[in-house]
Amino acid sequence: MSYTAPVKDMLFVMNELAQLDQLTLLPGFEDCGSETADAVLEESAKFCEEVLAPLNWEGDKHPSTWKNGVVTTTPGFKAAFQQYTAAGWQGVVHPTEFGGQALPKLIATACIEMSNAANLSFALAPLLTDGAIEALLTAGSEELQNRFLPNMVSGKWTGTMNLTEPQAGSDLAMIRSRAVPQSDGIYRIFGTKIYITYGEHDMTENIVHLVLARTPDAPEGVKGISLFVVPKFLVNADGSLGERNDVHCVSIEHKLGIKASPTAVLQFGDAGGAIGYLIGEENRGLEYMFVMMNAARFAVGLQGIAIADRAYQKAVHYAKDRVQSRDLIGSPGPVSIIHQPDVRRMLMTMRAYTEGARAMAYVAAAMSDRAHHDPDLAVRKEQMALYEFLVPVIKGFSTEMSIEVASLGVQVHGGMGFIEETGAAQYYRDARILTIYEGTTAIQANDFVGRKTVRDGGAIARLLAQQIKQTERDLAISASADALAVLKQLAVTREVFEEAITYILANVKTDIKAVFAGSVPYLMLTGLLVSGWKMAIALLVAEQKLGQDIAFYSAKIATARFHAEHLMTKAPGIAGSIIEGSKSTLALVPEQF
Amino acid sequence: MSYTAPVKDMLFVMNELAQLDQLTLLPGFEDCGSETADAVLEESAKFCEEVLAPLNWEGDKHPSTWKNGVVTTTPGFKAAFQQYTAAGWQGVVHPTEFGGQALPKLIATACIEMSNAANLSFALAPLLTDGAIEALLTAGSEELQNRFLPNMVSGKWTGTMNLTEPQAGSDLAMIRSRAVPQSDGIYRIFGTKIYITYGEHDMTENIVHLVLARTPDAPEGVKGISLFVVPKFLVNADGSLGERNDVHCVSIEHKLGIKASPTAVLQFGDAGGAIGYLIGEENRGLEYMFVMMNAARFAVGLQGIAIADRAYQKAVHYAKDRVQSRDLIGSPGPVSIIHQPDVRRMLMTMRAYTEGARAMAYVAAAMSDRAHHDPDLAVRKEQMALYEFLVPVIKGFSTEMSIEVASLGVQVHGGMGFIEETGAAQYYRDARILTIYEGTTAIQANDFVGRKTVRDGGAIARLLAQQIKQTERDLAISASADALAVLKQLAVTREVFEEAITYILANVKTDIKAVFAGSVPYLMLTGLLVSGWKMAIALLVAEQKLGQDIAFYSAKIATARFHAEHLMTKAPGIAGSIIEGSKSTLALVPEQF
Repeated sequence: MSYTAPVKDMLFVMNELAQLDQLTLLPGFEDCGSETADAVLEESAKFCEEVLAPLNWEGDKHPSTWKNGVVTTTPGFKAAFQQYTAAGWQGVVHPTEFGGQALPKLIATACIEMSNAANLSFALAPLLTDGAIEALLTAGSEELQNRFLPNMVSGKWTGTMNLTEPQAGSDLAMIRSRAVPQSDGIYRIFGTKIYITYGEHDMTENIVHLVLARTPDAPEGVKGISLFVVPKFLVNADGSLGERNDVHCVSIEHKLGIKASPTAVLQFGDAGGAIGYLIGEENRGLEYMFVMMNAARFAVGLQGIAIADRAYQKAVHYAKDRVQSRDLIGSPGPVSIIHQPDVRRMLMTMRAYTEGARAMAYVAAAMSDRAHHDPDLAVRKEQMALYEFLVPVIKGFSTEMSIEVASLGVQVHGGMGFIEETGAAQYYRDARILTIYEGTTAIQANDFVGRKTVRDGGAIARLLAQQIKQTERDLAISASADALAVLKQLAVTREVFEEAITYILANVKTDIKAVFAGSVPYLMLTGLLVSGWKMAIALLVAEQKLGQDIAFYSAKIATARFHAEHLMTKAPGIAGSIIEGSKSTLALVPEQF
Repeated sequence: MSYTAPVKDMLFVMNELAQLDQLTLLPGFEDCGSETADAVLEESAKFCEEVLAPLNWEGDKHPSTWKNGVVTTTPGFKAAFQQYTAAGWQGVVHPTEFGGQALPKLIATACIEMSNAANLSFALAPLLTDGAIEALLTAGSEELQNRFLPNMVSGKWTGTMNLTEPQAGSDLAMIRSRAVPQSDGIYRIFGTKIYITYGEHDMTENIVHLVLARTPDAPEGVKGISLFVVPKFLVNADGSLGERNDVHCVSIEHKLGIKASPTAVLQFGDAGGAIGYLIGEENRGLEYMFVMMNAARFAVGLQGIAIADRAYQKAVHYAKDRVQSRDLIGSPGPVSIIHQPDVRRMLMTMRAYTEGARAMAYVAAAMSDRAHHDPDLAVRKEQMALYEFLVPVIKGFSTEMSIEVASLGVQVHGGMGFIEETGAAQYYRDARILTIYEGTTAIQANDFVGRKTVRDGGAIARLLAQQIKQTERDLAISASADALAVLKQLAVTREVFEEAITYILANVKTDIKAVFAGSVPYLMLTGLLVSGWKMAIALLVAEQKLGQDIAFYSAKIATARFHAEHLMTKAPGIAGSIIEGSKSTLALVPEQF
């Protein structure tokens, strides 16, 4: 088996850290407890392991191809996608009124991790569709919802996000695509969009593009952007497919990784204008797109965790299998390399990063569930604030670490890792997009500093620090050697996190460049802290349950301690960079580079 | 120009940090001063920029191909190699008696950095040839030297290193290739060697393989390995080429990067045995091979610096060119992304790593020159010990950082970085081999802990710490804000380095696995310290010379301070991992992974 979904680990996080049982107390989630989670995860694991994982390497060898505007996906993808939709996986988290299962995001999160670990390129199609569904749910008219959502929730049609243009990447203010209103209330769309994931493919009969464009008299900048639905094929009133719309794929990119997923350049309106339907109100497109982007950013964070776990599993397999050199403490003959201390260090690093990031993301998913379902408005508000605080961290931290983890995965394989047929290199290549798309790490960090830390005067950040202090007290009460080792690092990390917040709040008005020079380090510091904190709680749970399953729980304890002693230990240096380092970061003028 | 050799930076390091002028006081180097260096570097830069650099992307698009045992290199490589040898670049560092120029390793080092930055795949052929020449110079008989060296030093023939076998990678004790002595004093070689860089190609008329194999009654393990010269074509007494030898390329690998350089599987002796000539004495092959490996390890460290610089140059170019978003402090319109603080942080990180590693490597090259040329035996011995101490650090640290730097290079490009045609991804792929071949980072770290730190009881390591303390005093005397900022971090880093040494020496006998669990972190910590130390000296020089060239020297000062505040700051965390972290690294049993 090339991928084994870590169901036991996932359920541990869901039950013990994200408190799935408490979600079942919320209206709508009464039947979504541990039994449901067990069943859904088992079924998802089976599908991902048996159907999606074997196609992953195929997709790398046989990328999607383009010919005369038609994109043909990797052999096997279309059939797999049909199985995926037939089993209802696209609708796990979506409303029952449109055919979904309305399960908690927490449960969907595990499924999404699995499909991405099994096949990142494949899983991008559902990921983008989820985002488009979210945007339509948020702002689409009832008519648009009824026309598009049932077939998107079922997976019969996929969705895309059309933001980027050649001159407008990170800066959406520079978007130039035009939307010209017609007499019958529709719009004609003109322009070029690039980097459109699954912008064209052969897996479904229709594709629902969500497109940012400007109406003729829109204000300049981001306040003049509107959001449109532009289907590949128009949809008749009876739901049947109508004419081909004026949107065409003029090429797909030749990429470093995720080669099976077509990255399209789409041309709108070369033959009179593509027909588009306005979502919500004019000039509020960016606001709606943020709904979609936040869902997608969380999901890309999961992609990081997924590829990290896949790389870890492969490295473990090789390390147990490859016999080379004697054991350092002596052995009759050569032993498998998992006995070498540095291989152990690499595997533990991969494992601790992955488990820590998973814990952070799943706990955040449960926050989102509470933010949407808790009857108490104050709880909903706080949970939403915490969730939104964590989204850029989950996206930024989990994807940055995934590159390091995938690189370690190559390293564990030695020379074999550099040979493409081994497969470890694919993860290294695939992972490399994750810190870029859906907003680079710097974009996440800008959001994290600006909207998530400064705007509320550090309130949510400090609330988190308070919650962490409670865990510190719990660790002190446990007082085991492991708990105390973790406590030492967690307390230091939380302290320097608070120092960073103080520095940011004190300087953001007077020296904004200095503060933003430390934005990515601040995001990474927070990722280390929150993932390490969740690992610390895992350790405390594991100490309680140790007798029930010594191998499993002792591994949780050791991994938490490793995280503290080898990953969280980076925190003071990072904080130093943030607080003292901006002068040297910004000292040169451009000509000196 | 896709690559511009940083001649000014190189000369700064050579003159101010590696003290080229002092080398001219040594016998044999009288004419090798600043003027010679200027001339050689200018000429090398021209060749690398104009001939080698444009072929780099060609090599990625059109890798070497194999057909029926024949390897055809990328179009243009053969002609470029002829130009390379015609200009005498292969012989820069080699003895004049075999046609070389016998220039200091310090000068050759700059040339090797340039050729690798321009075209890593191409430069591997000369790199391996250099190693083979070193081994023949060390242990080859006069007859073997005369038969092979002139054509290797001229570049007419290339050389290879044949170590690895399918079951013998990092552990050479497991080598099984056989060498059967014949009546006429030659040997017949049988076996399979893998991962042989330029093991077969069409750039030269002959290839000189250096091959590790066992004689029939050799002892087991590494003490039973002998080293042989096995030319692709036998060489007649008059120097003309004779029969084709029984060594054949059965395939080449499909690799993640360095695709132009053929990585061969070589089969020896399928038709009666390949004719080989013993180098030196039987069973001393590993010892001779270490000469070759040490030269090659140093050179692979240079490859890391080279690819880092190439990635940096490309990222700077893009960052100055790409216009996107307004300046954070306000601007009339969008500005180039080099004005974004996080882009600045990434570029400074790339720059500081590259300059720091370059300074370390070039200073070590000068140590090697003194180790071979100083009339005073005590000086020679100390310089050799310092050089050998640093070789695994130069190899391990410079290559590890090169992966991070190449990855940052992709990140600076945003979405464009993931598109292969941009070229940034090639560096990310190419760099990934550097921490693996010529001994993985763990192999370097084992050497660094075992042979370089423990064997002499930490004497050389502590000598280095003493030398660093002198720089700390100099920084205190300068007392500028920049010097004091660097002093703060340098002193802390040197202190934790000394703590790590103490820990290693105290525990290596009683808990060897715990110590080796920290071997790579200890190597990385040392790399940060030594590169940061050299940057600190650069800062002091730059403060003295500031008025002569403000733009250049102020950049040196800022880069040194950035190195201290953003890179050296990692040191305490790393030291903590080494000293306190081994328990969690080693806590799991293999079944728990």
